[in-house]
Amino acid sequence: MDYTGFFRSELDRLRLEGNYRKFAELERHRGRFPVANCHNGPGEVTIWCSNDYLGMGQHPKVLSAMHEALDRTGAGAGGTRNISGTTHDHVILESELADLHNKEAALLFTSGYVSNWAALGTLAARIPNCVVLSDALNHASMIEGIRHSRAQKVIWKHNDLADLEAKLAALPPEQPKLIAFESVYSMDGDIAPIAAICDLADRYGAMTYLDEVHAVGLYGPRGGGIAEREGVMDRLTIIQGTLGKAFGVMGGYIAASAEICDFVRSFASGFIFTTALPPALAAGAAASIRHLKASSDERAAQQARVAQVRARLDEIGLPHIENPSHIIPVMVGDPVKCKFISDMLLREHGIYIQPINYPTVPKGTERLRITPSPVHSQRDIDRLIAALGTLWARCQLARQPLAAQ
Amino acid sequence: MDYTGFFRSELDRLRLEGNYRKFAELERHRGRFPVANCHNGPGEVTIWCSNDYLGMGQHPKVLSAMHEALDRTGAGAGGTRNISGTTHDHVILESELADLHNKEAALLFTSGYVSNWAALGTLAARIPNCVVLSDALNHASMIEGIRHSRAQKVIWKHNDLADLEAKLAALPPEQPKLIAFESVYSMDGDIAPIAAICDLADRYGAMTYLDEVHAVGLYGPRGGGIAEREGVMDRLTIIQGTLGKAFGVMGGYIAASAEICDFVRSFASGFIFTTALPPALAAGAAASIRHLKASSDERAAQQARVAQVRARLDEIGLPHIENPSHIIPVMVGDPVKCKFISDMLLREHGIYIQPINYPTVPKGTERLRITPSPVHSQRDIDRLIAALGTLWARCQLARQPLAAQ
Repeated sequence: MDYTGFFRSELDRLRLEGNYRKFAELERHRGRFPVANCHNGPGEVTIWCSNDYLGMGQHPKVLSAMHEALDRTGAGAGGTRNISGTTHDHVILESELADLHNKEAALLFTSGYVSNWAALGTLAARIPNCVVLSDALNHASMIEGIRHSRAQKVIWKHNDLADLEAKLAALPPEQPKLIAFESVYSMDGDIAPIAAICDLADRYGAMTYLDEVHAVGLYGPRGGGIAEREGVMDRLTIIQGTLGKAFGVMGGYIAASAEICDFVRSFASGFIFTTALPPALAAGAAASIRHLKASSDERAAQQARVAQVRARLDEIGLPHIENPSHIIPVMVGDPVKCKFISDMLLREHGIYIQPINYPTVPKGTERLRITPSPVHSQRDIDRLIAALGTLWARCQLARQPLAAQ
Repeated sequence: MDYTGFFRSELDRLRLEGNYRKFAELERHRGRFPVANCHNGPGEVTIWCSNDYLGMGQHPKVLSAMHEALDRTGAGAGGTRNISGTTHDHVILESELADLHNKEAALLFTSGYVSNWAALGTLAARIPNCVVLSDALNHASMIEGIRHSRAQKVIWKHNDLADLEAKLAALPPEQPKLIAFESVYSMDGDIAPIAAICDLADRYGAMTYLDEVHAVGLYGPRGGGIAEREGVMDRLTIIQGTLGKAFGVMGGYIAASAEICDFVRSFASGFIFTTALPPALAAGAAASIRHLKASSDERAAQQARVAQVRARLDEIGLPHIENPSHIIPVMVGDPVKCKFISDMLLREHGIYIQPINYPTVPKGTERLRITPSPVHSQRDIDRLIAALGTLWARCQLARQPLAAQ
């Protein structure tokens, strides 16, 4: 077997398909984000595609909590949670998270990916004869977790209550069921009908697992997510979230009953056999959560920027998916043009927006996924709209009919 | 289905079996490690079971690199590696790691667990008809990665060259093969015959995947691990390591050819769909690696402490596994006594050593896994030996015959 030849030909195939990824090498400047230095690009750029949705990654409270924890305790945790790696900062953070979602307990993981993979994988594998009802657009980490469990999986049409109900009704009433879905879907920015899904779960005796990674910190009076905003947190069996997006740090978690957190803690390989998060990350995340529980300024500013960018896109007729979230997918619909526009934005305008192509989104729906944030200025918005307008013309892309002026 | 009842009964079963884990809640004090405050225990304790093997988690160079990066760039990376999350600090760290192992490239993951799971899972799944030859005592993360791949798996007896060869010889010569093993095994502290395994790999046309998580930073003139010490790094296809043990921070990686790193980077779900490590962690890890490339003082001091603890255990006849590594498994051989000694060490002597029971180790081999480090003082060693001697007597545990004095 010519291993190297195999790897080369697979990589060549990716290149031919236009799916080979080159990473932009960025260096953010604290206090100047969304500006960053692009080391393998044109130098200074403005980032418009970050998941540090509120700029909390440079919030003074977050940074000072991290500095303080580094000075107090040092760098790493030095072990798994069971073998010397549980620190006071982890325990405090888990308590903040339980409080955020009004659940009995929370359990930390090293990432949102690992929390989905490990929690879903463990629950679905260990509950005898469990069937997972998985939304068709669930994130890769959920899909891999369910796959890893080897449990029966039933995929229901994205956000489609009738299809979910049909699939629930077709299963034996006594079979254990777990409905897995997200609140805000990352690529389209649409939002699940959480309460109605909980109604179905109640009716058919299912547990619910809600991924709120694109919503925690961003929605609800205390940043508890869409479920908090809609007053349904108590109806969900498990809420999963991340510390690496709106909270600006890193890590993932579930919040649930004491029994469920203890069960996953006790049986999940991906939780047990891995070094714990550094205490400084836990301290930074706790500071971020605490701040966003008390302050809605960042959420309000973000929503205002989002509305403004949408309105400005509409003014020049650029097509974008109408959705009720903070994610603005500007639709290009062609992989080559999508990549070209992204390249030109970077090179000629100092604007960084990663193109989103297949397989992340279906072919024909290639897009620029824009995430306006409180840290973007009016001038940033003006420059973004001007650059997009210019490139849209250059690529001869269709525009939406403009509203009567 | 009574879900809560199910979770409760599973947890009760763990309690009955003596396998229910309670985590010690620790707060380390920078500059005073291995001393920590045990919030749910007796207050101040000395940690003897940390995987921060060299105390690099509180090294001034590591901490100042982390402080500097926090001040320079902020907290989190804000995205996946592909979508705004690749920072200058990641690129520098990957270059340090490639250099450490004298490989063309390296690829970072959020943890050692994820690096094993994602790299092995991707290689074994994507190489057509690949068979993985896995050492019987491989770590959970490797086992889960291989399992996830659904590739054919052949388990060979731990560190047994004859068995490995027999299993290689029984496979079709043209079938792609990947031999997965560790250098230092965490629970027994024994070391694989790396060169001889590479000989077999060459003979049978297999790739090799070596997990060096308990060796990087600790062995070899520049801390490249056992493979560096034995001059065989170039013979291994893939070397995997961690930034969370001897390097004192968090994260995992593989080092390999440019093609292999690019292949895993391009296809591994657990790499692609997860938020990148915070730049401050990358900066801290790079500083740690750089220091340990140039300084062997920490390695020498650790080896001296290990030899001293072994000699002192021998003096009082306490049984421990003779091995050529820094890990000292003191054998209790009874789960209840093992837990009792650990509890008494903590409560009465302020010494924290987590008991290692089944399923982590086989029944009848329950142990205290001791990891001496340069930060343990002579007084720490005196206290450890005195406490163990007292408790050994109290539990009426057998001693080794003493050498003639």
